[in-house]
Amino acid sequence: MTLIDWIGSFAAFLTTASFIPQAWQTFRTRDVSGISLGMYSLFTVGVALWLIYGILLMAWPIIIANTITTSLALMILVMKLRYR
Amino acid sequence: MTLIDWIGSFAAFLTTASFIPQAWQTFRTRDVSGISLGMYSLFTVGVALWLIYGILLMAWPIIIANTITTSLALMILVMKLRYR
Repeated sequence: MTLIDWIGSFAAFLTTASFIPQAWQTFRTRDVSGISLGMYSLFTVGVALWLIYGILLMAWPIIIANTITTSLALMILVMKLRYR
Repeated sequence: MTLIDWIGSFAAFLTTASFIPQAWQTFRTRDVSGISLGMYSLFTVGVALWLIYGILLMAWPIIIANTITTSLALMILVMKLRYR
């Protein structure tokens, strides 16, 4: 892997992993007041489309990263709808 | 552009645009209680690395999408730090 590949892989790891502390905080505190419903609606559809894009291209890094991100974003969206 | 290109472009548009309602809601209400500091710390570094990755590859779609997303994520991170 080149340095550019490493930067891209680390970027993908961070943007995917970043939703773990949000999902955990929301699950633990049930505090969704500051979270935008519009954001998680658009974002969940967006990452689900990234997942479909990855499947159509059979691109495993895109499939793996966006399966995780779609799952986490969907959890946060469902908690936003249930806890408000 | 193929159908796959359109799906990828629309996915990129949605995941980028999704941070606009969050930034606007946070700016307007100053309510950051439900927002995870861990998420926006990791996410801002992650999208900034995506931007560097795009610059190194001279890939304009990656540069444009991640310039916008890095700006919006950084605004939300700064508001999280100031309004708590």
